Amino acid sequence: MTTIYRSLLFLLTVGLLAMSAAKPTRVVFFGDSITQAGVNPGGYIDRLKKSMPADQYELIGAGIGGNKIYDLFLRMDDDVLAKQPDVVVIWVGVNDVWHKASMGTGTDPDKFIKFYDAVIKKLKAANIRVILCTPAAIGEKTDMTNQQDGDLNQYSQFIRDIAKRHDLALVDLRKAFLEYDLKNNTENKDRGVLTTDRVHLNDAGNQFVAEQMQKVLTAAK
Amino acid sequence: MTTIYRSLLFLLTVGLLAMSAAKPTRVVFFGDSITQAGVNPGGYIDRLKKSMPADQYELIGAGIGGNKIYDLFLRMDDDVLAKQPDVVVIWVGVNDVWHKASMGTGTDPDKFIKFYDAVIKKLKAANIRVILCTPAAIGEKTDMTNQQDGDLNQYSQFIRDIAKRHDLALVDLRKAFLEYDLKNNTENKDRGVLTTDRVHLNDAGNQFVAEQMQKVLTAAK
Amino acid sequence: MTTIYRSLLFLLTVGLLAMSAAKPTRVVFFGDSITQAGVNPGGYIDRLKKSMPADQYELIGAGIGGNKIYDLFLRMDDDVLAKQPDVVVIWVGVNDVWHKASMGTGTDPDKFIKFYDAVIKKLKAANIRVILCTPAAIGEKTDMTNQQDGDLNQYSQFIRDIAKRHDLALVDLRKAFLEYDLKNNTENKDRGVLTTDRVHLNDAGNQFVAEQMQKVLTAAK
Amino acid sequence: MTTIYRSLLFLLTVGLLAMSAAKPTRVVFFGDSITQAGVNPGGYIDRLKKSMPADQYELIGAGIGGNKIYDLFLRMDDDVLAKQPDVVVIWVGVNDVWHKASMGTGTDPDKFIKFYDAVIKKLKAANIRVILCTPAAIGEKTDMTNQQDGDLNQYSQFIRDIAKRHDLALVDLRKAFLEYDLKNNTENKDRGVLTTDRVHLNDAGNQFVAEQMQKVLTAAK
Repeated sequence: MTTIYRSLLFLLTVGLLAMSAAKPTRVVFFGDSITQAGVNPGGYIDRLKKSMPADQYELIGAGIGGNKIYDLFLRMDDDVLAKQPDVVVIWVGVNDVWHKASMGTGTDPDKFIKFYDAVIKKLKAANIRVILCTPAAIGEKTDMTNQQDGDLNQYSQFIRDIAKRHDLALVDLRKAFLEYDLKNNTENKDRGVLTTDRVHLNDAGNQFVAEQMQKVLTAAK
Repeated sequence: MTTIYRSLLFLLTVGLLAMSAAKPTRVVFFGDSITQAGVNPGGYIDRLKKSMPADQYELIGAGIGGNKIYDLFLRMDDDVLAKQPDVVVIWVGVNDVWHKASMGTGTDPDKFIKFYDAVIKKLKAANIRVILCTPAAIGEKTDMTNQQDGDLNQYSQFIRDIAKRHDLALVDLRKAFLEYDLKNNTENKDRGVLTTDRVHLNDAGNQFVAEQMQKVLTAAK
Repeated sequence: MTTIYRSLLFLLTVGLLAMSAAKPTRVVFFGDSITQAGVNPGGYIDRLKKSMPADQYELIGAGIGGNKIYDLFLRMDDDVLAKQPDVVVIWVGVNDVWHKASMGTGTDPDKFIKFYDAVIKKLKAANIRVILCTPAAIGEKTDMTNQQDGDLNQYSQFIRDIAKRHDLALVDLRKAFLEYDLKNNTENKDRGVLTTDRVHLNDAGNQFVAEQMQKVLTAAK
Repeated sequence: MTTIYRSLLFLLTVGLLAMSAAKPTRVVFFGDSITQAGVNPGGYIDRLKKSMPADQYELIGAGIGGNKIYDLFLRMDDDVLAKQPDVVVIWVGVNDVWHKASMGTGTDPDKFIKFYDAVIKKLKAANIRVILCTPAAIGEKTDMTNQQDGDLNQYSQFIRDIAKRHDLALVDLRKAFLEYDLKNNTENKDRGVLTTDRVHLNDAGNQFVAEQMQKVLTAAK
């Protein structure tokens, strides 16, 4: 091989690596109405787009209002796999619990785990890095008197166990929200600190979630 | 090819056809607690085993108590496809409706249809003949005052529409039960005519279901 | 007694009778959000005020959104008895049924009857004429596939039985709505014929209810 | 007044006081299935009968399975006031919360408070000493992951507030059970420490409740 040929090969390799390095990590945020609103101006995904380098991260919202874990399962081919993401952040659980009381169509504990596992299995089979989140809140009262606190704690624990079992990164928003509210919600209000309506994020909530997410997204895994 | 050789080949072919003809049609009954009890002595599957020729039909129960349509979806690989059936009879829906009130974990109408379609799609892909049934009853009162009558009617209509859309045979047990009760339940009792407890079959109910099923199972399709 | 004195007594008596005749019958409409909206311009109570002679009938709305039968019981002293009505029209039941699915706080069948009886007992003890109404609709589909049809039929039957037991006039709106919809809702829509949203009255609904009410209000009892 | 007459008067007074002292304090335990079972051998009321002097305390069970606060209200004339008790111990709340999920007929928070107030008002009007209890548990897990923990905490707080507002003694069984389970349920089991089935008392539970009740019953108020 001549020196010139070697040099060309070297340049080509460097170029390919550079191109490869230039391709940003594609992240799909897969969730419910909280994530649907996350792409709005000031939403947590919108904030992440501003705080994370655009040449390194392509952030895509895939949230639909009212979604439970099995809605994610039913639409994951079209809404997630078709986008060929590198990373998927799953944030679900509020409706699985809430719809028990508000519609009679919440998700059974064992079925929640089974469908969650099925979603992860399909993502892993496509070599996608998966990050899990616990459902943050249905009510911000800090003395465990929000109606769904017990059930949300239960489903959050399911997700922590699933993360551990599959060795996946976790954004423990349930824990983080409670700690934040214990400090900042001294009047034991049920909304208005991180949420507008006990569930959906206000400005502080979107900022807080963006920060929690960014920490885990940028951590080596 | 010599004549003898030809004759041997002919006999072999006939023999294979005969063996093929001798292999009974394998039917899996896929459902909830009503089907789980159907294999018990006197149950509707047990009755079908006696009334249908065993050399023509192999009848297998695959019912599990409390199952909703998405439970069927989650376990269909292990409990149905692994058995390589020729026919699958799906009878589900009572819990999808009932668990709204009794557990808060019933099935949303649109999700009921989506999972039902997903189950049928997988069965058809395996070249399995699929027969659908409507959920019979939660209460036998004939004046449409059983608590879940409206919702059961709705989900039954979903199943009729699905059968039509996929061109599948239907055992319309909801319709058949109402007609039977209109004749035989003149006191407007909520149980005791075809059911023991408003839902699960008594002897008359098991016999009635067996008859309705047999008609459709033996019909050419 | 002199003639003049007799004449004065006669005139006084006539005057008192005239005054008595002039005092209009006071009717309180006691119910939920449907009745709360009934006093709005175009609402059924507003229409009754226009169609019934004001010198003969004083019509007062006492509806509060979300009310169930035991809400009526809890507030009847303040909101009804304090107004010393001659007639009370009770129209309740939609939330007793609906809140089972939407909040988990519907009313048990036996408790519905007990509180209904308790309300009637207190009204009768105050010599008030009581008129009952059945809950009209949660969904206008005419093929009994509205989710709550069975339960609404059941609670309507309770009210018919209560009316019979207490010998009270009944405005059977459930029956009347179904008959109207069977004629006018040929597309089997769930709203838009007599209701805006499956429950609350549109213009046609307010007019229809006003007519049904007026018939019973003006009937001799 | 003669000496003899004085002496007779004195004896009569002493006799009346003696009779008065001899009349034991009549206590009615007013509640749900937990109290209904409390009179059974080994039940908490049965244990109290053995541990408290029979000449000083007459203990009467008035529990009915499935009762919510408004069931107590509906039957208090017959089942409590008619017995002319000196003390009434109210222990209710589990079904007000539980029936939301299991029947769709739980009790609204504001209605729970209103009916509780109405029960207390009638008891106080009859000069009866009232003792309140918080609902102990629906599940004994100590990490606040029992499904109804949030709601039970909320309703327990309502009862603590009601006790304070009416200046009534309180047996805070919810707090006591949690403290006991934190010490004795180190495996975080959902039953088997103080309950048989997450709700109803086992032997240890009956003994524990008896001890908590006795402390408050014998305290001067």
